[in-house]
Order: sequence, then structure tokens, then C-alpha cells
Amino acid sequence: MKEIVNCIAYAEGQRVAEVPLPQVHEMLRTEGQFVWIGLHEPSEDLLARVQVEFGLHDLAVEDAHNAHQRPKVEMYDNTLFMVMRTAQMNAEHHIEFGETHFFVGANFIVTVRHGNSVAYNNVRARCENMPHLLSKGQGFALYALMDFIVDQYFPVVLEMEKELEEIEDKIFKERPSRQTTEQIYMLKRELLEVRRAVSPLVDICNRLMRFDIKCISQDTHPYFRDVYDHVVRINEMADNTRELLNTALEANFSLLSISQNDVSKRFAGWAAIIALPTMVAGFYGMNFKFIPYYESSEGFYWVIRGTAVACCLMFYFFKRSGWL
Amino acid sequence: MKEIVNCIAYAEGQRVAEVPLPQVHEMLRTEGQFVWIGLHEPSEDLLARVQVEFGLHDLAVEDAHNAHQRPKVEMYDNTLFMVMRTAQMNAEHHIEFGETHFFVGANFIVTVRHGNSVAYNNVRARCENMPHLLSKGQGFALYALMDFIVDQYFPVVLEMEKELEEIEDKIFKERPSRQTTEQIYMLKRELLEVRRAVSPLVDICNRLMRFDIKCISQDTHPYFRDVYDHVVRINEMADNTRELLNTALEANFSLLSISQNDVSKRFAGWAAIIALPTMVAGFYGMNFKFIPYYESSEGFYWVIRGTAVACCLMFYFFKRSGWL
Amino acid sequence: MKEIVNCIAYAEGQRVAEVPLPQVHEMLRTEGQFVWIGLHEPSEDLLARVQVEFGLHDLAVEDAHNAHQRPKVEMYDNTLFMVMRTAQMNAEHHIEFGETHFFVGANFIVTVRHGNSVAYNNVRARCENMPHLLSKGQGFALYALMDFIVDQYFPVVLEMEKELEEIEDKIFKERPSRQTTEQIYMLKRELLEVRRAVSPLVDICNRLMRFDIKCISQDTHPYFRDVYDHVVRINEMADNTRELLNTALEANFSLLSISQNDVSKRFAGWAAIIALPTMVAGFYGMNFKFIPYYESSEGFYWVIRGTAVACCLMFYFFKRSGWL
Amino acid sequence: MKEIVNCIAYAEGQRVAEVPLPQVHEMLRTEGQFVWIGLHEPSEDLLARVQVEFGLHDLAVEDAHNAHQRPKVEMYDNTLFMVMRTAQMNAEHHIEFGETHFFVGANFIVTVRHGNSVAYNNVRARCENMPHLLSKGQGFALYALMDFIVDQYFPVVLEMEKELEEIEDKIFKERPSRQTTEQIYMLKRELLEVRRAVSPLVDICNRLMRFDIKCISQDTHPYFRDVYDHVVRINEMADNTRELLNTALEANFSLLSISQNDVSKRFAGWAAIIALPTMVAGFYGMNFKFIPYYESSEGFYWVIRGTAVACCLMFYFFKRSGWL
Amino acid sequence: MKEIVNCIAYAEGQRVAEVPLPQVHEMLRTEGQFVWIGLHEPSEDLLARVQVEFGLHDLAVEDAHNAHQRPKVEMYDNTLFMVMRTAQMNAEHHIEFGETHFFVGANFIVTVRHGNSVAYNNVRARCENMPHLLSKGQGFALYALMDFIVDQYFPVVLEMEKELEEIEDKIFKERPSRQTTEQIYMLKRELLEVRRAVSPLVDICNRLMRFDIKCISQDTHPYFRDVYDHVVRINEMADNTRELLNTALEANFSLLSISQNDVSKRFAGWAAIIALPTMVAGFYGMNFKFIPYYESSEGFYWVIRGTAVACCLMFYFFKRSGWL
Repeated sequence: MKEIVNCIAYAEGQRVAEVPLPQVHEMLRTEGQFVWIGLHEPSEDLLARVQVEFGLHDLAVEDAHNAHQRPKVEMYDNTLFMVMRTAQMNAEHHIEFGETHFFVGANFIVTVRHGNSVAYNNVRARCENMPHLLSKGQGFALYALMDFIVDQYFPVVLEMEKELEEIEDKIFKERPSRQTTEQIYMLKRELLEVRRAVSPLVDICNRLMRFDIKCISQDTHPYFRDVYDHVVRINEMADNTRELLNTALEANFSLLSISQNDVSKRFAGWAAIIALPTMVAGFYGMNFKFIPYYESSEGFYWVIRGTAVACCLMFYFFKRSGWL
Repeated sequence: MKEIVNCIAYAEGQRVAEVPLPQVHEMLRTEGQFVWIGLHEPSEDLLARVQVEFGLHDLAVEDAHNAHQRPKVEMYDNTLFMVMRTAQMNAEHHIEFGETHFFVGANFIVTVRHGNSVAYNNVRARCENMPHLLSKGQGFALYALMDFIVDQYFPVVLEMEKELEEIEDKIFKERPSRQTTEQIYMLKRELLEVRRAVSPLVDICNRLMRFDIKCISQDTHPYFRDVYDHVVRINEMADNTRELLNTALEANFSLLSISQNDVSKRFAGWAAIIALPTMVAGFYGMNFKFIPYYESSEGFYWVIRGTAVACCLMFYFFKRSGWL
Repeated sequence: MKEIVNCIAYAEGQRVAEVPLPQVHEMLRTEGQFVWIGLHEPSEDLLARVQVEFGLHDLAVEDAHNAHQRPKVEMYDNTLFMVMRTAQMNAEHHIEFGETHFFVGANFIVTVRHGNSVAYNNVRARCENMPHLLSKGQGFALYALMDFIVDQYFPVVLEMEKELEEIEDKIFKERPSRQTTEQIYMLKRELLEVRRAVSPLVDICNRLMRFDIKCISQDTHPYFRDVYDHVVRINEMADNTRELLNTALEANFSLLSISQNDVSKRFAGWAAIIALPTMVAGFYGMNFKFIPYYESSEGFYWVIRGTAVACCLMFYFFKRSGWL
Repeated sequence: MKEIVNCIAYAEGQRVAEVPLPQVHEMLRTEGQFVWIGLHEPSEDLLARVQVEFGLHDLAVEDAHNAHQRPKVEMYDNTLFMVMRTAQMNAEHHIEFGETHFFVGANFIVTVRHGNSVAYNNVRARCENMPHLLSKGQGFALYALMDFIVDQYFPVVLEMEKELEEIEDKIFKERPSRQTTEQIYMLKRELLEVRRAVSPLVDICNRLMRFDIKCISQDTHPYFRDVYDHVVRINEMADNTRELLNTALEANFSLLSISQNDVSKRFAGWAAIIALPTMVAGFYGMNFKFIPYYESSEGFYWVIRGTAVACCLMFYFFKRSGWL
Repeated sequence: MKEIVNCIAYAEGQRVAEVPLPQVHEMLRTEGQFVWIGLHEPSEDLLARVQVEFGLHDLAVEDAHNAHQRPKVEMYDNTLFMVMRTAQMNAEHHIEFGETHFFVGANFIVTVRHGNSVAYNNVRARCENMPHLLSKGQGFALYALMDFIVDQYFPVVLEMEKELEEIEDKIFKERPSRQTTEQIYMLKRELLEVRRAVSPLVDICNRLMRFDIKCISQDTHPYFRDVYDHVVRINEMADNTRELLNTALEANFSLLSISQNDVSKRFAGWAAIIALPTMVAGFYGMNFKFIPYYESSEGFYWVIRGTAVACCLMFYFFKRSGWL
């Protein structure tokens, strides 16, 4: 994949021209136009050139080069710098996180994509199909990208809710196992990571709506409110799942205790059933000269029959009182 | 059920006329009148027509078409858009959630009902019976609908409190079972869902009272405070039940441990009672030439009697010290 | 008990006259006077008459008729409406909750008492004995009543602290029992109810001190601060007790585990002590032609003595290492 | 101990004269002077006289007579009333709490000491040794006393941290015991009491720095910030200890479970080792005419040797796999 | 190591001269210059001389002499006093904490290093290599030092995350042990200490950005925002690890319960397998004249073969149902 995925100028919501990077600063002079550049894991060298073209702040560029930032939004002079984390489920049902950085200025937007994440070609195409909205400027492009990234969290969180339901089934319908406990732990781990990626966005959306700057036009604010709303919902779903997961862990624990109880009872019951004939046989094994029914040809059988009947009675009694 | 349940214009708290949808914008021109429309799972097409009639915002209409929003209130230009979740207990004591969306403008109120929920005909009828209050405008209609929806949560929460009491009885009076643990978990799950539906309403009511806009007249504010109050009470009841539920889970767990302790003790006691005669019989089964009382015709019986007495003493002793 | 317990007009801290309800509105015209009415579970009819006399708001009167409100304070026009919950311990050491509603206007105070609660005659008498304070107006009467209600929570909370100490004694000095667990749960339940009744009062007192209205004179503010202080203390005591209760539940659980451990060890120890002679006797019960000491007249006794000594050694060893 | 411990007037940081209580109001007239009075569990009568001399508010004096207040600071007219709780470790390593109340006015400071607490003679002496600081007025005296009281909490909290370390040693190095659990509970109890005494001081210090009143001069503010800092540190230490204590309780619990597991395994292992020879002996005790090696003179010993070898093998195997 | 590590004057980002301490106050008179002094565990005497040179506040100097402060920032007149805790992993994977105090005035910065910590020579060298940034004044030097200290926490927290992963492996892949529980506890202990050192920095950075004072120039604010960002990330990582650690403790506990269950079941299974032949042998040991197959020369073997087959069947059955 190329480092510079796309570099296009827009005017009144319409694509004007594909611009080579060194000519961008010329485009920026024209009023009513903005440039939208998409980078993918750019080299330090390319970032330095972009920095010169748009006049970006040192600290922001240093951050942009460096993945593993936490989601945040900062104003450096008149340029907004934003970090978002992206997420998607891979084939093995594990979450893959990526990172996208945004520079938004008076008439440009630069996206820097790191790690695993879907390319933003579709977002660009969708924006180009809505010229009346894209004419609101780079603020709308920013919204479109944020909305796209945030919406990718929904399948992730829904997948997690489904996994919680699987865990519930295992806990309440199957027998407890090491795997269930490990699965609970691993799901919690992923939930914490999702929350770490999503929860700062609540604050970020709030600040985007309050920022009183040229680079985000006033009439895009309802759109950021919409993103805010989605973020809050994802957060709530994750928190809910986490709280249920904690309860599931405890419920699992209770059920473990109950089944341990059951094992103990069953064991005690069978021990009693076997101990009785052993004791009776022990008595008949005593070496006395006079042993009752010693001479009886049926004595042996009667003892066995008698103890068998006693065992059956005990079995019936234990069964009825729930010990077996 | 029709998509458009009702579409009526009101002036000074009195029903003026049933209005067909395409003529609504004419009604809206008359000062001192407002139109109250009730929709039920409208098609995308109908929503588009409604949007044109009242000049609604794209994002709001998109949300309205889409169920599964979280409760919220937003201002789009001069129109208020609100989402509430409705709840009712079905015959199997499970909660069925629905959703209602509201558009409130300078002289109209539109309700969009989704999923399981009671129709609002009764609310409308009740409002029409109080013309002096309905004359406060669409703000009062909004209050009446909110109050109706919120009050439907009371039986739901009371039912949950009753279920908690059932669980308490099971925990403290019956023996622990898998079912109780599952019931605790499921109740907690429902509680979390109710809280997710109700808790955003606290903030919504607060914002409705602060909003300084034409569509909600100042003198309806005490009414929203009333709704606020009910919402807080439902929240408190749910939180209380949840906290007790957590304690119940732990208490259940303690009792499980106690009953396991009891099983262990009882088992140990009976094992000791049976082991003693088995040991004595073992001694008398040893092959020595000289065994005491070997020749006694009563020896066999005396051993049995002796061990029986010893067992009874052990039984009495264990019973007294709580081991059996 | 009468519905109208008392209806008296005061001027400059002195009792002026007992007033029949229909003449109250005449009294209200006189400057520098205020009327203090005490109602007890009034009928809907009486409340309607009171509403007319004092010009109360519909919603407030509806609430006042309806017990089971949560504690709150609201301003309706120029009238303050307040709800408090009262509590007292009954003979069986259970808490009985009641409810009192207050209407405070420019020159009147109305109290509406519901459910179990002590009458306010003593408060009125005490106020009449302090004319220099009562001359501060109905604000002081409100304080006196609040102070009385709040102070009734102290014995309730102290009783709960005493119950916690009882539970501690049971946990750490006696053996664990189902009753202790149930007692912990029930105490927690009561604590939650007390907190629900008291914690909103923190906010209420704060608002009473901030309210800038005629009906509560400025120089009564230190008194409400005093009530505030008591409320915070009751809250703290309840929270403390609750936190200790949670720890007690866990400590109880640990001790259960320890005593289960003890049972297991003791059981294992005794099993070993009994198993040894049984095994030895088994060997001597084997049918071989040549068995050592078969012919010895003391063989039988020597085996018993030998195993007895071995058992004693085991007993001593187990005792020393804490297994018995 | 006398009720009036000290009553001295200061001017420009220098001790002016010891003043008898009835002449205090004369001293107060002189500009640039302040009176510092120390009381110890004063009688109601003495407090009344003090109230008259300094013009204190009824509610504050009522509180001052009454121990068992929670820490707080209140402004009554121009007089500041403050309550602090003091703590010290007694010889049996239990915390003894006391209480000190302060009245600070335009030119006086009154301290009222209740319960167990060190006298403030040393603080007074130290202040008198720093006339350049004491010349800042009664505000500095207040600081010196607060600092002294707060610093007494450090040894208390350090002692608690040491006790936690002892508990850790007991948990991880010794075997679990009832005493450890009780010790954890009791330490938590004390921690909660310390927190109840210290945590309101955070807010109190904040308010002392914000109060814009004559009785505390502006240039003493950095000193109260210092007290604030100590209070926050004590709070943090207590919270830390509490959180570790909770984890210790859980870790203790885990270890209990592990040692229970060990007991079960060891028991099972020994049971198997003893059950095998018992079974073999049983076979050789069967009454058949033909028993293998019946006539062998070594048969008896071979069986014992054989089972002994088998037992040793089992012992070795169990030992290796961690069951014994 | 010397007490005064370095004492150098800078102008326009360039090193001007090494200054002996007594001449510092002369350097301070020159506009546009600032002095950067590094002290290492200074004696009380040296601190007193520094205090005189820079006119520092008594309380600040007292704090600076005293290690074991909590991180904080205070303004004393025009001098900023700041405390930070430093951390590094030693060879035994334990954290060693140190402490650094900063005095920042209009044209000077003094650092006071206590305990284990890396010297700041490298920071100074790096600053001297960036004269355009160092020309922003002592504010930038402060940033560089803070950044250095904060960045040293990353390896510490990463090491902790690695240790958590080790613990996870032990819990889910190996058998539960006392060591794992102790390791969890000790890791939590260290996490709490790290949090105590780092979390106050969030507030400190916020205040540094808000402080409107000469000693920190406006254009260094973005740099402190960068430090803030790192602090928040370290905090988040620590909190995350802590939450996972708590869950790990619980998961560990569940697995302990499961393995206890397994032990119980296995024990019960083997007990049954051994009890059966013992019982049968007991029957054949009974002393009856007529015992079936008594005379058969194969009887003895047939009983053993029969019970062996029965035991094998039981073993197979138990294995299949998961009891062994």
C-alpha cells in the first residue's frame, strides 16, 4: 500500500483535482477550497514534508509518527490534532486495534492510519456522493471519518454481548469448567481495552462541539452530537456487559459451590451404602465358636439378601432427601 | 394498526379538527393552535412526508426511523427530538421494552411508537378532559405522555422487588439451588436494562426544565419536575434492589458454605459411627488360637451389643455438639 | 385522632389565637403573623379546603395526599413544598417509617403527617417556650420540626450500630450460623432504607439555605446548617455501618472456610486413627496356616495394645500439628 | 486538670499578660492584641461565661459543650467555629479519639478540649518562640494547633501500616487462623474511624483558605495549605491501607482454599495408601478351602511385605505429583 | 556525589557560565538570563544558603529538606514549588522510588534530588542541544525534567503488565499455588504505590497550564499538555492492570474451587473402586459353615477376577462421566 493513499482538493463539495504533495501549499491559498490527504503508516521523512506543507506543530507530528497514543484531541495554534483508536473483529473472534490520527486546519484535513484498520476510501466516496454536506468543509469530512470508525465498534460490542450469552449458557446449562473461567477473564480483558479506546471519545466529541474555531464549521455540530450519541451507547453496552460479566463470575462461583456440595453429598451417600454391608460382614467374620445360623445352609445368602435390602432402603431414602 | 393513529389540531385546549397529513402545514400557520400526531412504526416513506410537513432535521428523522436508540433529548434548530424507552411486564413476568420518539416544535408534537407498548389514546383522552391544562400547548401534551410512560415503570419495578423477596425466601428458608442463582442473575440482568432505560431520563427532565425555547412553555416546568421526581424514585428503587441482590448473592454463598460444612460434619459423624464396630469386628476376626470369650455362646451378641451401645453414645455426643 | 390536630396563629413568637380553618385566610391578611396548622392523614376533601385557603399548587396537593413520596423540596410559585420520611424503632427492634409533608408560605406553615410517627405537639410546645426564636417566623417552626424528625434517626442508627456489634460477637466468638447471615442481610436492608430516607436531606438542607425567598428568613440559615450537620452525621454512621457490614459478611465467610478446613482436618485425623487398627486386624484375619504368635495366649491382646499405642502416638502427633 | 488551662493576651507575637476571664472583654478592645484561651472539658456554666465574653452564637456553644461532633467549620456572624477530632495510640495499640473545638474571632482564639488528647502547652510554647510568626495573629495560632493535631495522626497511620505488614506476614508465611481474620476486621474498623476523623479536614482546610474574613489573615494561607497537604497524605495512606486490607482479606481467602485443597489431597492420598493393604488382607481373609500359599510359612510375611512395597510406591508417586 | 551537581547560567538557550552559588544573586539581576542548579540530597546548611540566594519561602524549603512528600505543586509568592516522585525498576524487578523537588522562579530553576534516581545530566545535555527551545526559559527546563521523570514510569508499568501476563499464565495453565496469590498481592501493592506517585500529576499538569505567572512562559503550555497526556496514559495502564488483577484474583479463586471439586470427585471415585472388593472380600470372610464355592480350588481366584472386572467397569464408567 502506498504511503500517500490519496491527496485531493475539494471546492463546494466537489472534487477539484488530485494534488501532488509539493503543490498542496499552493492549493491552500485559494479561498473556499480544502485538501483531504490520506496517509498510511508514513515514513518520518514524508511526515516532515507534510509538516512543512501545512505548518504543523512539532509535538503533534512527533505523536503522529508514534502509534500507541491514547485517544485525545488537542489544539496546536490553529490546527486540531486528534487521535482515535479503531477496532475490528478478526476471523478468530479476537479484536484487532489500529490507530488513526487527524490533522484538521483552516482548509485541510490529513489522516494518518496505523496498524490494522479498514482504508477510508469508502468514506471518501460516500462524502463525494453528498456534495451538499461535503460543502460544509473539512469538518464534515472529519465527522464522516469519526462516524465510520465509531460505527465499527458496534459489531465488536455486539460480538462481545453474544459471547457473554454463550458464557451464560455454559454457566447455567453445562457443568463448570476451567475454560469458562478463562473465557470470562479474556472477555473482561477485551472489554477493558474497548473501553479504553472508546471512553475518551465522549470527552472528545464534547470538545469538538465546544471548540470555537474556523476549521470546524458551526453547522456540523449536530453531526458530532450524533457521534457522541453512538459513543455513549457503545460505552453503555460495554459497561453493561462488564457488570454482567462480574455477576456471571460470581454466579459461576456459587454454582461451583453447589456442585461441590452435590459431590460431597453423593459421596457420603454411597459411602454409607457400602459401609453397612462391610460392617455386617465384619461381624460375621468374627471368630466365635457360636455364631448364629452358622450351620444354616442359607445363612450366607440371607446376610447378603438382608444387607442388600438395607442398602436399597438407604438408597431410596437418600434419593428422596436429595443426597444422591 | 394504522401508521397514522391520530392527527388532530387543538386550540385553547380544545380539539379543533382531525387533519389529514398533507394539510397539516396549513394548520401550522394559524397562531394559537397546535397539531398532535401519533404514528405507529411508520414507513420510511411516511416519515419523509412528515419531515417535509414539519421541517424536521435529517439526523433526527434518521434516528426516528431506527429503533434501538438510547433515551436522549436533542435540539435541532427549533425542534426538540426526544427518545424514550417504554416497558411493561408480559404474562410470563418478563419485561417487554418498546420505544417512543417525540418531535416537538413551536406548534406541533409528533409521537413515533416502536415495538411493544400501549397506545397513547388514553393519554390523549385524558388531556382532552383537562382543557385548562392542555391549553398550555404541546408542552403539556409532552408531559402527559412522559408521565404515562414513566408511570408504567412502577409496576415493573414493584414486580422486581417482589421477585427479590421471593429470592430472599428461597435463600433463607429453602435449600440453595441452581435455580436461585440463575434467578438472581436474570433479575440483575433485567434491572440493568431498566436502569439503562430510566437513568438517562434524570438528565433529560433536567434539560427540559432548563431549555429556554418556545415549544415548551414556562408554566409546564413544574410538571416536568414531577416526572423528574418519579424517574428518580424508579432509579432509586432499581438501585436498591440491585444492591440487595448483590448482597443476596453473597449471603446465598455464605449459606452454601454453611450447608457444605454441615454435610461434611454429618458425613464425618456417620463415618465414625460405622467405623467403630467395623474395627471391633476386625479385631474379633483375627486368627489367634486364644481369643477372649471365644467359647462363650453369647460372645457374638455381646460384641454387637457393646458396639451398638458405643455407637449410640457417639450418636448422642455428636448430636449434642452439632455434628449430626 | 383528629384530622386537624392544631391550627394556631402566632405573632412575634407568641400564640395569638386558635383559628378555625375557614377563617384562616382572614388571619393571613394581617402583617407580622403566621399560621401553623398540623394535619394528620387528612381526607381528600380537607386537603382541597386547605388548598383553597392557602392557594397551594395542584401538583403539591396531589403529592401531599399521596404517601410514599421520596424526600424532596420544591418551590411552587411562592410556596415551598417539602417531603420528609420519619423513622422510629418499634418494640420488636424493627424500623417503622412514616412521612411528613410541609407547605411553607409567606405567612403559614402546614404539616401533613402520614403513617407511624410521633405527633409534633412537643415541638410546638418547645417553640412556644422560645418566643424570641419563634418570632423569626414559620422558617423557625420548619427548622424545629426538621430537627425533631432528624434527631429521631439517631437512636435508630445507634441501635443499628449495636446490632452490628452483636453480629461481630456472633461471628468472631460463636460458631457461624444461618441466622447470622440472615441477620446481616436484614440489617443491610434496613440500612439501605434509612439511607434512602436520610441522604436526600443533605441536598434539601443545602437548598433551604440557598433559597432566597420570603417564607424562610435569612437569620434561620444557621439553624438549617445545624440540621444539615446532623443529617451528614447520620449518613456517615449509616455508611460506616454498611461498609463494616460488608466486611463482616466477608470475614464471616473466611471463618466459615477456616472452620470447614478444621472439620476436614479433624475428620482426616480420626479416619487415620481408626484405619490403622482396622488394617492391622485385617492382616491378622488372613487365612494362612502359619500366623506369627498364633498360639500365644496373649497375641490377641498384644495386637490390641500395639495398635492402641500406635493410635495414641498418632493422636498426640496430630494434636501437636493442629490436625485435631 | 483545671477547666481554664491558660488565658493569655498577645501583641505583636509577644505574650502581654495572663488575663482572668472576666477581664477578657477589656483586653479585646485594644487594637493589635489577641487573647488565646485554652479550656479543658468546661462546665456548662463556664461556657456560658465564655459565650458572654466573646459574644458567641448559641448553636456553636451548644455544639462545643457537646462532644461527639463530626469535624466541621462554620461561620457564625464573624466568629469561626471549628471541630476537629484528635487521635493517639495508647499502650495497647488501640486508637483513642478526642475532640477539640475552636472559636476564632477578630481578636481571640478559644480552644475547648474533650476526651483523651495531649494538652496544647507545647504548641503555645513553640508559638511563643516564633514571635515573627505569632504576630500574624490568632490565625497562626489556629494553624499551629491544627498542624499539631494533624501531625499526631501520622504515627497512628504508620502504626496501622505496620499492623498491615504483620497481617501480610501472618497470611503469607504462617497458617490461616481465626485471629488473622479478626485482626483484619478490627484494623478496617479503626481505619474507617480514622478516615471519618480526617477526611472532612480536606474540605475544612480548603474553606479556611477561601474564607475572606478578618479573623484569619491572608498571609497565613500558605500554612493552611501545608496542613491541607498533610491531611491529604494521611487520607491517602489510610485509603491505601484499606484497599490493601481488602485485597489481603481476599488473598487470605484464596490461601484458605488452597490449604483446604491440600488437606483434601493429603487425606485422599493417605486413605488410598491405607485402603490397599486393607483390601488385600480382606482377600486373604476369605474362607476358601484353597487359598494360594496357605501352607507357606512365609505367606503371612510376604503379603505384608508386598503391600508395604505397594504402599511405598504409592507414597512416592503421590509425593511426586504433589498429593502428599 | 557532590551536593551541588551543577550550577549554570543560560541566556537565549545558550550556556553562559558555570556560577558559584554565592554569586548567583548577581546573575539573577541580568535580564533574559536564568540559572539552573541541580542539588543532590543537600545538607540543611546548603539549603539555607540556596534559600537566601533565591528568596524561597520557609515552608517550601522545609518540605524540600524533607523527603517523603506527596507529589504537589504550590505557589509561594512568585516562586513555584513542585514535588515529584521518581521510579525505576531495580535488578530484582522491584520498584525503587526517589523524589525530586523543584523551585522555579522568574529567572531560575533549582532541582533537589532525593533517594534512588537517575541524575539529570542527560536532560541538561539534551536541552543544551536544543537552544531554540531552551530559549523559552526555565519553564522549558522544567518540562524537560518532568518529561524525563514521567517517561521513566513507562518501563515500570510495562514491566507490571508483563508480570500480570505471567500471573495469567500461572493461573490458567499451571496449578494454583500460594506463590501466585502472594505475587498478585505484591503486584497490587506496587501498583497502588505507582498510582499514588503518578495520579497527583494529572492535577499538577493541569495547574501548570493554568498558572498565569512569569516563571512559566505561555508558549511552553503545549509541552505540559504532552506531559499530561503521558501521565494520563500511565494512570490508565496502571488502573487497567489493577482491575485485571482483581479479576485474576477472583478467577484464580474459581479455578481453585474447580480443582477442589476435581480432587473430591477423584477421591470419591477411587474410594468406590477400592470399597467394592473390600466389601466382597468381607462377605467371603464370614464364618458360615456353608459358603458357596468353598471347596472350589479356583474360588479364591474367581472372586478376585470378578471384583477386578467390576472395578474396571467402574473405572471406565467414572472416567467417562468425568469423575476420575
